[in-house]
Amino acid sequence: MTRSPLAPASTPEPAPIPGVTTRVARARYKAWDRCDLTFVTLDEGTAVAGVLTQSRCPSPEVEWCRKALVLGRARALVVNAGNSNAFTGNRGRAAVEAIAARAAAHLGCEPSDVFVASTGVIGVPLPIDKAEAGLDAAFTAEPCSWTAAAETIMTTDTFAKVAERRATVGGQDVRLVGIIKGSGMIAPDMATMLGFIFTDAAVEPGFLQAALSSANRKTFSCITVDSDTSTSDTVLAFATGKAGNAPLASEEDEGAPAFVAALSELCMELAQLVVRDGEGASKLIEISVEGAESDRSAHVIAMSIANSPLVKTAIAGEDANWGRVVMAVGKAGEPAERDRLAIRFGDTQVARGGLAVEGYDEAPVAAHLKGREISIGVDLGLGEGRATVWTCDLTHGYISINADYRS
Amino acid sequence: MTRSPLAPASTPEPAPIPGVTTRVARARYKAWDRCDLTFVTLDEGTAVAGVLTQSRCPSPEVEWCRKALVLGRARALVVNAGNSNAFTGNRGRAAVEAIAARAAAHLGCEPSDVFVASTGVIGVPLPIDKAEAGLDAAFTAEPCSWTAAAETIMTTDTFAKVAERRATVGGQDVRLVGIIKGSGMIAPDMATMLGFIFTDAAVEPGFLQAALSSANRKTFSCITVDSDTSTSDTVLAFATGKAGNAPLASEEDEGAPAFVAALSELCMELAQLVVRDGEGASKLIEISVEGAESDRSAHVIAMSIANSPLVKTAIAGEDANWGRVVMAVGKAGEPAERDRLAIRFGDTQVARGGLAVEGYDEAPVAAHLKGREISIGVDLGLGEGRATVWTCDLTHGYISINADYRS
Repeated sequence: MTRSPLAPASTPEPAPIPGVTTRVARARYKAWDRCDLTFVTLDEGTAVAGVLTQSRCPSPEVEWCRKALVLGRARALVVNAGNSNAFTGNRGRAAVEAIAARAAAHLGCEPSDVFVASTGVIGVPLPIDKAEAGLDAAFTAEPCSWTAAAETIMTTDTFAKVAERRATVGGQDVRLVGIIKGSGMIAPDMATMLGFIFTDAAVEPGFLQAALSSANRKTFSCITVDSDTSTSDTVLAFATGKAGNAPLASEEDEGAPAFVAALSELCMELAQLVVRDGEGASKLIEISVEGAESDRSAHVIAMSIANSPLVKTAIAGEDANWGRVVMAVGKAGEPAERDRLAIRFGDTQVARGGLAVEGYDEAPVAAHLKGREISIGVDLGLGEGRATVWTCDLTHGYISINADYRS
Repeated sequence: MTRSPLAPASTPEPAPIPGVTTRVARARYKAWDRCDLTFVTLDEGTAVAGVLTQSRCPSPEVEWCRKALVLGRARALVVNAGNSNAFTGNRGRAAVEAIAARAAAHLGCEPSDVFVASTGVIGVPLPIDKAEAGLDAAFTAEPCSWTAAAETIMTTDTFAKVAERRATVGGQDVRLVGIIKGSGMIAPDMATMLGFIFTDAAVEPGFLQAALSSANRKTFSCITVDSDTSTSDTVLAFATGKAGNAPLASEEDEGAPAFVAALSELCMELAQLVVRDGEGASKLIEISVEGAESDRSAHVIAMSIANSPLVKTAIAGEDANWGRVVMAVGKAGEPAERDRLAIRFGDTQVARGGLAVEGYDEAPVAAHLKGREISIGVDLGLGEGRATVWTCDLTHGYISINADYRS
């Protein structure tokens, strides 16, 4: 698969996070010769938090993680690529239990300390024999780089996604490293968003969860490639505590704001990396809505624009078709008044007060639309609500990947 | 534009409806040499009902019709193709008023007896001079056929859409003829659904509205091409009363059920003709959901499936990718239990009880998917709610029409 034109020039390779060891192996979930099982061990005392798909038909992995998150502690993460194990009934559940049991036996921990995520074809139970053999191979493998782990969790992704942030917490330097995969807000049996964040900061599970949930609302929940939500979307954050800071337990703790900010920035970078690898994407689109009745209303409207096939195809065609933005605002079902609506492409106001800006300069708009990063702004003129979301354009590439493919 | 492969073999040409006269003219709203203005006169005493877009940013035509519908009487319909006049502020409103005033002066009726609908580019005020010149030409034109009228309201449509039904009402034979245009559930500035139904039955406006609203819920509201809702969607029904039946005023009246049934069937045929002309469509997809907690819930789930880019691209690729149907059920946000879910393609059950049907016969599924008309069934196993919706597949043709186009 050709590397996305929106990919960053290179993939960073952060230093290891103390207390975290990544290993990969070949479970051969598909007929391919690549690593497809990632095994991450976490030192004792690691806190964990997570956000999981809102799907009413979640995978057994998602159900497993949801339950295990209640305890707030983690010793291992196992990620399978090539088979999502979703919609596989009791056999799928058995596969997750077998993986957790085997990793727990190896580490001498509880199965509930083992987190599992899978991505790939739906409806086919994850083969337990392959998973166990892959795990056994991973147990004895050499530790690997972040890039190798990020590559191993990929499915239709065209580039490995790694990001890093730093913060000072209680006088200690702490680091956060994240890896993520996803080429759509999702495509079961092809692409699911799985993201994993590791930090050496000491953070209590409850506060880690609050910080991750908060970051998620402004980052992962604000991206969309195709409006399709996976049965397996999973983001987990692990804090090993090796940095030696006094454990963060609330926003009032010293260094907590810095940690929260670093986590949010990391999530933002990871989320945007997913959009940059959107299936068939040729342009990254930032959509900012302001003047809505509430932040929630602004988010719904921004997502209505971001998910509109007609807006996305217009951007693909480098067409300043703001009429389609009006349409998408109108269909969102949220408060909007046509005669107060203002729309900009890049820095150019193209519509205001319910009609086109007479004689606006089309040259900067055309130049902006020829670029790789497109900015669309909408002001509803009603209130103080605002939201920003990110998506990509809809191109022939998306159709080729998803229609020309056979399951 | 190549005729859609899903188009019927021929367009019917029903006899005129007494009390209805159709004429067309060249207003030249775009640089084309085709008729683009349709002028329909209706004899005195004609009742009217309508359903209009739910968009929060409707066109001035939609606002005009919404107001005029309150009076329940019509003498004329003017349809402009090539310019939707949406999002054009006061100048757009002035254009609609000018059209209504000119037609009213010509007919000696009130402007509120004149209904107006427009479709085409958004954000450009309808040029009043062209509209008036076009209207003047239409006033003196010879009456035209239904097919000519149906062709004149087209934009990106690839075939003219006409349908007819008959019923016996109060001992009188009555007829209903409909014309419609639309290639998407919408694409502002390219395609909008406009439908017009004419009958010689005598029907009180209130009952006509009730019958049309009821038919709409099961027909026009159950189709989608791309999930994008126009600022201009309009369906109007006109009843001239020339058939001589005692006017229908309630469901209890003799012949009312027959009329309502004929109207519903006509709406269904018209709605499906729009899907058959969906932009880039190569397959018509019927999605039936049953076993939901309510009919409303079933409709939301069916629309979630119908609007999923991944389901639509799978069908385009003739791929029995039922995992994507699971995904779309899961993301709908309505009650669903993975382990009760059953899915069929054509007549073949492919998933049941939360997992694939072991060893189901793939041959009939593959054969079904190679056809032009695809049927997907979902049983949620929760209750008695059911709904059926229609859509088309998502192909390279859709991208070509909407991305390769410049406004």
